[in-house]
Amino acid sequence: MNTRTLKIRTKERSSEYVVEIGSGLLPETGSWLQSALGGRTRIAIVSNDTVFGLYGETVADSLEDSGFRTEVFLVPDGEEFKSLSNAEKALEFFSGARLTRNDCIVALGGGVVGDLAGFAASIYLRGVRFFNIPTTLLAMIDASIGGKTGVNTSFGKNLTGTFHQPSGVLTDVSTLETLDPRDFRAGLYEAVKQAAVSGGELLEDIRAFLNENADAGRAERLAELVFRQVSFKASIVEQDALESAERSDSRSRKVLNFGHTTAHALEKVTDYSYFNHGEAVGYGIIAASEISKRLEICPSDSIDLLNDVVRGVGVLPDASSISITDVLGAIERDKKASESSVQWILLEDIGRPVIVSASEIPPNVIRESLEHAISRRSNG
Amino acid sequence: MNTRTLKIRTKERSSEYVVEIGSGLLPETGSWLQSALGGRTRIAIVSNDTVFGLYGETVADSLEDSGFRTEVFLVPDGEEFKSLSNAEKALEFFSGARLTRNDCIVALGGGVVGDLAGFAASIYLRGVRFFNIPTTLLAMIDASIGGKTGVNTSFGKNLTGTFHQPSGVLTDVSTLETLDPRDFRAGLYEAVKQAAVSGGELLEDIRAFLNENADAGRAERLAELVFRQVSFKASIVEQDALESAERSDSRSRKVLNFGHTTAHALEKVTDYSYFNHGEAVGYGIIAASEISKRLEICPSDSIDLLNDVVRGVGVLPDASSISITDVLGAIERDKKASESSVQWILLEDIGRPVIVSASEIPPNVIRESLEHAISRRSNG
Repeated sequence: MNTRTLKIRTKERSSEYVVEIGSGLLPETGSWLQSALGGRTRIAIVSNDTVFGLYGETVADSLEDSGFRTEVFLVPDGEEFKSLSNAEKALEFFSGARLTRNDCIVALGGGVVGDLAGFAASIYLRGVRFFNIPTTLLAMIDASIGGKTGVNTSFGKNLTGTFHQPSGVLTDVSTLETLDPRDFRAGLYEAVKQAAVSGGELLEDIRAFLNENADAGRAERLAELVFRQVSFKASIVEQDALESAERSDSRSRKVLNFGHTTAHALEKVTDYSYFNHGEAVGYGIIAASEISKRLEICPSDSIDLLNDVVRGVGVLPDASSISITDVLGAIERDKKASESSVQWILLEDIGRPVIVSASEIPPNVIRESLEHAISRRSNG
Repeated sequence: MNTRTLKIRTKERSSEYVVEIGSGLLPETGSWLQSALGGRTRIAIVSNDTVFGLYGETVADSLEDSGFRTEVFLVPDGEEFKSLSNAEKALEFFSGARLTRNDCIVALGGGVVGDLAGFAASIYLRGVRFFNIPTTLLAMIDASIGGKTGVNTSFGKNLTGTFHQPSGVLTDVSTLETLDPRDFRAGLYEAVKQAAVSGGELLEDIRAFLNENADAGRAERLAELVFRQVSFKASIVEQDALESAERSDSRSRKVLNFGHTTAHALEKVTDYSYFNHGEAVGYGIIAASEISKRLEICPSDSIDLLNDVVRGVGVLPDASSISITDVLGAIERDKKASESSVQWILLEDIGRPVIVSASEIPPNVIRESLEHAISRRSNG
């Protein structure tokens, strides 16, 4: 398979970084990193028990074979370990391993590992380079690129963090073969989210991928899907890397939060233990689409098409017993409430996101759209 | 008195920031911040008990009078409170005060308050604006500008932090009237450090200031001294804001660490409880000068001049009982050991710093220079 290469440049960084997407790339980690770094350094690999058990040896051996000295820091598997205290443990580990400003961090895993490792890298010695090797679909198309790092704290999810772009991303879609099908679907919901704000082509990609059941060429099709998703996200990040608070146009980084107003609230009211993040986004897509439809700002056949694709991904966990009042309360207190008013990302059509203040939407439209979303399962 | 204004621009930030230096500026904090922000926001003032007791009401009243809503977060006075756990408490406070990405942090105090508040500001919601109002000489000429933020951890001092430039600095030299004389001298040692790598003019400034004992015009002379110090530091920071690991030229930000190789080690071996940071820098200046002299890379009359000024600042705390072997060990393990080899900033002359790897200096020259420095008191 051909390896697809994409370069991302943000104005906050003097140099661009490269995303390489292909299949069977992990055994080449060492030579890839050597060409990215132009030399050999000490490396701390940050991973979790599960992923490191599957791919750690391949990656570490490849790095050692290329002359890097590696050290491994493992975190347990799960969102609850993306904490400030684990970040501090990582920093202590880097220091104990005598990592210098010339050395770097490699994050091997999904979004939790990438967010935590990226955050630790960004505050260790006031910032060292880090590289992402994402092993979940969600991390491949979303978390591994764009430089958002962070941890969860007692006062909220992802409220503590930095913007710290990776120095390179190596995306090996063959690692998706071992991904739990539920996590794979969760990644697809995030892909649908990006397609909704990007445009019809990305949505067509996902539809085609879902309809083509044959295993033959699956890796190739996945690599292409990931490549196109990453290309879109890069185009947004490149011109609004820091998600400027004052921007509210259709190319603002905020549009990538489509579906997330509801998603974060659903995760919160279920204590982050019921939904996989992507599944909550699945519900969020339905809710935001429904608001757009009821406000009559978006053609209803576009909404139907979007809902079709969400449904095509699979069955969302039942949400019908969740209290709408709780969800509305959580939305008010949510991260996006860090804006002076809650902001909803709605659609004027597929690929035409619009940012609307909650104060401009009749409360009953929001409530009924949420009810519509969570009272039905995505295949209902 | 005229207010002196200086603009600092770094390529990592889209907009420059302004440093205003004058006397009696605190009652104008509100209007100053309003013009810097172009509007009113919510503000968390971070300060310590002592400083807030002296100046908090003036600052808070001025802000409230200008239409800002203020909240106050106090940390106890002392380097030991510049910790990750206090940063977390600050974040929790910001969140509880419902600070949004449009709001900002004002640090009122010395280096500890500024470093801690700047760090918390840099990781809250992935970065909010912060403003420095330094109230110590050291913070005015050094810590408040240039964007280095950070906290101390169990594994070292300032090893955790970010580069996060302030959005503005308001320097009111009249706050120095209440500064402990020992802290004032400590700031002067840092000023001598900057003069050593900057050039003869800054050194002349300090000499003139020390020789002119009259109280008349003291504020004016202080403001001028601070302005010239800040101008020099800004000129370094503007072209190497992130202290590039690979640079080792005479305009590298690393040259601002002149005297700090020894200083950090002295602080460490005395558990950060004996020397004031600036005093340790005083010894560091003498040690680095002595190495430069023994290597015959710097004219000895320049070294004598520099030592004269250090001596003129005052008496350094006795260091003669400190073990040189301990100091050498601490240097090896020090922050600058985050470079692949310890790097010494030496002088080819006043204003001509040169970065030299420890491996290029005979060990006995380092040892004997350290002995020379700590076995004498600065007026000895």
